[in-house]
Amino acid sequence: MNYAVILNVLGNFLRFLGLIMIVPLLVAFHYRDPLLPFAVAIVITGTIGILLSHRYRAEGEWTTKEGFAIVAFGWFTAALFGSIPFMLDGIGPLNALFESMSGFTTTGATILQDIETHSRSILFWRNMTQWLGGMGIIMLFIMILPKLGVAGRQLFRAEVPGPTEDKIKPRIRGTARILWTVYVVISIIQTVLLMLAGMDLYDAVTHTFTTMSTGGFSPYSQGIAAFDSPLIEGIIVLFMFIAGANFALHYRTLYIDRYSLLKDNEFKFYTVIILIATALLTFSLWNDMGENILTSFRYAIFQVVSITTTTGYATTDFNLWTDPARIILLAVMFIGGCAGSTAGGIKIVRFLLLLKYSRNALFRSIHPKAVKPIKCNNRTVPDDVMQAIVSFVVIYLMIFAMSTALLSLMGMELISSITASIATLGNIGPGFNAVGPLANFDVVPPLGKLLLIANMWVGRLEVFTVIVIFTPEFWKK
Amino acid sequence: MNYAVILNVLGNFLRFLGLIMIVPLLVAFHYRDPLLPFAVAIVITGTIGILLSHRYRAEGEWTTKEGFAIVAFGWFTAALFGSIPFMLDGIGPLNALFESMSGFTTTGATILQDIETHSRSILFWRNMTQWLGGMGIIMLFIMILPKLGVAGRQLFRAEVPGPTEDKIKPRIRGTARILWTVYVVISIIQTVLLMLAGMDLYDAVTHTFTTMSTGGFSPYSQGIAAFDSPLIEGIIVLFMFIAGANFALHYRTLYIDRYSLLKDNEFKFYTVIILIATALLTFSLWNDMGENILTSFRYAIFQVVSITTTTGYATTDFNLWTDPARIILLAVMFIGGCAGSTAGGIKIVRFLLLLKYSRNALFRSIHPKAVKPIKCNNRTVPDDVMQAIVSFVVIYLMIFAMSTALLSLMGMELISSITASIATLGNIGPGFNAVGPLANFDVVPPLGKLLLIANMWVGRLEVFTVIVIFTPEFWKK
Repeated sequence: MNYAVILNVLGNFLRFLGLIMIVPLLVAFHYRDPLLPFAVAIVITGTIGILLSHRYRAEGEWTTKEGFAIVAFGWFTAALFGSIPFMLDGIGPLNALFESMSGFTTTGATILQDIETHSRSILFWRNMTQWLGGMGIIMLFIMILPKLGVAGRQLFRAEVPGPTEDKIKPRIRGTARILWTVYVVISIIQTVLLMLAGMDLYDAVTHTFTTMSTGGFSPYSQGIAAFDSPLIEGIIVLFMFIAGANFALHYRTLYIDRYSLLKDNEFKFYTVIILIATALLTFSLWNDMGENILTSFRYAIFQVVSITTTTGYATTDFNLWTDPARIILLAVMFIGGCAGSTAGGIKIVRFLLLLKYSRNALFRSIHPKAVKPIKCNNRTVPDDVMQAIVSFVVIYLMIFAMSTALLSLMGMELISSITASIATLGNIGPGFNAVGPLANFDVVPPLGKLLLIANMWVGRLEVFTVIVIFTPEFWKK
Repeated sequence: MNYAVILNVLGNFLRFLGLIMIVPLLVAFHYRDPLLPFAVAIVITGTIGILLSHRYRAEGEWTTKEGFAIVAFGWFTAALFGSIPFMLDGIGPLNALFESMSGFTTTGATILQDIETHSRSILFWRNMTQWLGGMGIIMLFIMILPKLGVAGRQLFRAEVPGPTEDKIKPRIRGTARILWTVYVVISIIQTVLLMLAGMDLYDAVTHTFTTMSTGGFSPYSQGIAAFDSPLIEGIIVLFMFIAGANFALHYRTLYIDRYSLLKDNEFKFYTVIILIATALLTFSLWNDMGENILTSFRYAIFQVVSITTTTGYATTDFNLWTDPARIILLAVMFIGGCAGSTAGGIKIVRFLLLLKYSRNALFRSIHPKAVKPIKCNNRTVPDDVMQAIVSFVVIYLMIFAMSTALLSLMGMELISSITASIATLGNIGPGFNAVGPLANFDVVPPLGKLLLIANMWVGRLEVFTVIVIFTPEFWKK
């Protein structure tokens, strides 16, 4: 293990984080909020970053192992240092880490009881952590994970613009710049549209931060319900939908082939799932809860897109809906968004391939000698990719089951345990009952909060990235 | 499709079923119960059986397709004709089919409200359907499914005594005789032991019927709690444990190598799961419910073995336990017993192989070039077996999710919908809440009962066997 490389990269990363914290400092200055939380955070983060990056040199070989360590510890480091402003704002260390991890993993689960009592700049930073996390996750998914062989490398690699078979280093800056440009451009468009729809600059920027990252934090405890505007909801639905799709495809659509999205199997399946779930939920709300059909549709499409893309925004307390309606939401919680997006969850492409794989096995049970490859976007899916996908789902569901059991052992009620587990592991945010959209995660006991922090971390980094560093084999020479 | 073969086999099968119904007729005669229900059932079943088997000749080729059709329709036919005595006893047709399907699939879910109001002979037949179903399932799993390539053919085929690479026909009678001998011998031993422990002949036989088949019906609405005897419970735990293990291994242990069971990976994992679940449940009952430690252990081991082996007996209303205790039971509901046993569920060997497969993928993410085969009992598991296992689990969980959603759409509460689905799909019997061990399935709406009948049928026949006959490809020439 080349520790020097890891520490050097983490050091550079902290320098960047310290630098970016100047933005909330300026916001604090503008609103005459206390400057101390950000000033201290900048000094600590920047100093440690400079010390690390100067002390350790990025020399020698990089292997897969260093890659895993950098990603896993990098996210944890971001959550840790990102929590400094929250602590200085008076939030306890465990809660601050929870909130910060929920931010950088774009989860959106909150422990804040009265959101509006916190300063505008702190809430700005809280939402900005999600936007930064979303930026990180696009880079991770499209550029780093494929190289680490996680979660079906060839599948996602092929989507990266430009030649991809060469080493990461020479192209990493170029590809990063392209993807971030797409992310920033779409973010600017959303901000402008939200302002045209009546939001002020602060609301528009903070909500763009958490839409584009499918994070779901809001400076208001009522969330999007605070605005009660069909136009704003429509804009947010559109941009959640965009953010839940593959950003490499957005790039291709914008710069190379404008039909890229429509040709993609995963994007089609994503659209179909959202349409079916919306139709079912509209029917359920209209039929069981006696809402009028338009209102039912308005609630249904917003909530389905919000949960499928793992954003977690709410326009109403969906926890009060009937069981059939809640089951639809629970189902899309497990599915999640597209690979290469900022969404979490198991991901559409994995479901799609598992379904194809199972259909293939059914076919083989009648025609045992027929060999029919599994295809996605007209390319054959190799066996090791299928193994990676299956293993991902197995480990994901095991972690979910263990987390549910542990929370319930800590005294949480069953439905709350189930949904708190999937809402953090899938980086969604709110669950049902005790952790519903109008409740918050402060009811979870301290040990449970640690568990949920781990869930968010593990779920965001596609499980393998974090799990491997806890295996003895990882640390063997 | 060779329909003549299918109808001929079904005809012969009905002749056998008609013949075996003489047993409950004799029981009815002994207890001076009405003879009509069985007499009519024998005449109808026997006549149709004779007509079919004479009209159609088993000539020409058998392919996999005929095998699937015979198994799937055979079980359904058994449930259909086996329900005649129930209907003549005054139970409505849908409920009679539910009870009979629950019998032949060794599920144990009941729609009877006051079990004791039914005659001794009807209750004898009810329990006997499970014993017959258990006999069928052993034959199916060890001899037929491996030939049909379902659920990992090589894995189970290797366990069959004698040379196995030749055609089914020449050896089918020999192997069947051996396995049934084992089943009958163990059943007789259990009956004798239960009588020594204080049961009368009727109770001993009827409970042996439903222990050996891991079915779980009882002529008493209190189930095993009616006896309140630690000795009887101990005997039942032992024989449920035996019935939940592979019968081919029992044969090997008895006649070839007495260490066969102890050498088997699945049996070891089965034992470990039961021990861990029992320890956790004992702790939970002792800690959360204030039971003394011995009583906790008594309840815990009985319930864990009963649910893991998918028997479904209860010595107490486990529905009243705390959530952590119920989660332990819910977890073992999904796991189920060993392959080649009378137990249902996903099965231990599938979990074991999925875990090995996922560990393998984790290892490969660090060492991408290392090729490490997945082994079970020192033999390499081929890729198509892994695909069959993965696909089984995917389809199983999809059916579970759809069933849960449909039941909840019919107005059932969430936990009841979840557990009614898994309890029927896994052939367990009771669930929680509305379908708990002291409640019954009559609360389910008619459409829901049909769905649960389908669940039992699909779950018992290892999913694929039933699902394929509903694909258009199956009926193509």
